[in-house]
Amino acid sequence: MSPIRPSQQYEAIADHLRTAMREGELNPGDILPSEAQLCESFHSSRGPVRQAMATLRNEGLISSGRGRRSIVLEAAETESFDAILSATSWLSSHGIEPGSRTLLVARQPAPADIAAKLEIGEGEPVVSLHRLRLGDGEPVLVERQHFRMEYGRHILGMDTDHESINRGLQQAGLNINNISRTLSVIPAPDDDAQLLELEQPSALLQLEMRTFTHAGTPVACMDYRYRPDRISMGMNNTRGNPSPLWVNVHV
Amino acid sequence: MSPIRPSQQYEAIADHLRTAMREGELNPGDILPSEAQLCESFHSSRGPVRQAMATLRNEGLISSGRGRRSIVLEAAETESFDAILSATSWLSSHGIEPGSRTLLVARQPAPADIAAKLEIGEGEPVVSLHRLRLGDGEPVLVERQHFRMEYGRHILGMDTDHESINRGLQQAGLNINNISRTLSVIPAPDDDAQLLELEQPSALLQLEMRTFTHAGTPVACMDYRYRPDRISMGMNNTRGNPSPLWVNVHV
Repeated sequence: MSPIRPSQQYEAIADHLRTAMREGELNPGDILPSEAQLCESFHSSRGPVRQAMATLRNEGLISSGRGRRSIVLEAAETESFDAILSATSWLSSHGIEPGSRTLLVARQPAPADIAAKLEIGEGEPVVSLHRLRLGDGEPVLVERQHFRMEYGRHILGMDTDHESINRGLQQAGLNINNISRTLSVIPAPDDDAQLLELEQPSALLQLEMRTFTHAGTPVACMDYRYRPDRISMGMNNTRGNPSPLWVNVHV
Repeated sequence: MSPIRPSQQYEAIADHLRTAMREGELNPGDILPSEAQLCESFHSSRGPVRQAMATLRNEGLISSGRGRRSIVLEAAETESFDAILSATSWLSSHGIEPGSRTLLVARQPAPADIAAKLEIGEGEPVVSLHRLRLGDGEPVLVERQHFRMEYGRHILGMDTDHESINRGLQQAGLNINNISRTLSVIPAPDDDAQLLELEQPSALLQLEMRTFTHAGTPVACMDYRYRPDRISMGMNNTRGNPSPLWVNVHV
């Protein structure tokens, strides 16, 4: 039995290389050491070195080898799981002061479309939250969130202008395990345009999201509408590594 | 020394589970067998089983375990590397007949912004391609692509209304290794709106892309502008697995 489990060893190697990139020891365009050299440096067999490289490729940090040495790619600051869940975390991670203006917090019967997304019966109670979100005082997005009652009830007592919903729910013991998102462009309804200080007609970037517990139970469904000039997104992909994005066409 | 390298073994296990999901042996919401059961089924130690699970989590196929059994998630048909590179592949993979109307193929001096993206001098020759892309005969996106001369010269002889540029360049020996993409929403310029049969004012979903060789040399830069009602995209994320998306805010 080796003192380090192989799964820990590959993580240690990947971590070491990530740090080297972050600290400028390895820069975009640099060629990575060969597998043999990495094995020697890390006193490792080929397996963990290969797995570390596969991990870094998946993260878009290095090019795919395909028989040749990998190079360091231009790194992007990718989103964290918490930043997907929480506009507060997302804005803060970009050095921008998050703000909220609550327009509605309500316990109400679920309309059919919301009930379907939460996998509950139409008319069962949900907690709905409608907020304008600000970054450094400027309007960035309009949020409409609907929570299953067992989770949403914690929100009814929160100060939704100043507290992070996500942090509050975590403290109440809720653990979101996975998220599905759909992105589209929609014409701005007048109420959203007014909140976002957009002249009509305008378009919005819409992100519809559902969050789930580990057991696969829906927790909430969200409709986020961003001022299009205040958001951009992107991704790096390397050949041979799966992209998690789906892109549908409607004709 | 074991007869199967661990790296092959984890791939075999991941493949087996993927097939089980595709063929309906495992369905969304089902609980996966325990690590111990998988070890037994595959005559494997824990390492490869864990690595197979990590791979499936990265692909958004199963939930993260965190001490509990993973469940099978609703799978999305994610994009392939070729579908990122080629609208022809992308449309075909959705059962839609791809079409092209070429508006311009030209060898021309690179304007400053294109030269910067291709990392060449301003005024050096590039091959530019401007096409309307159709799906089942309906306008879907407007393409503007600019290739470095050494790659683009192959395009000058192609039938760009009927041939796949990507396939042609592959046959000429070009191997794209990685891609960076940026997504935003822009007001539709009049010429694009007319091609896409949109009434003004309209918005477009813009995807700016750069492709690179293994050595990190830019091959081409692209500006794709989609009719917003003909495209949607999305992603599934599980806690503990890195998301490759970056999301910036501009205030």
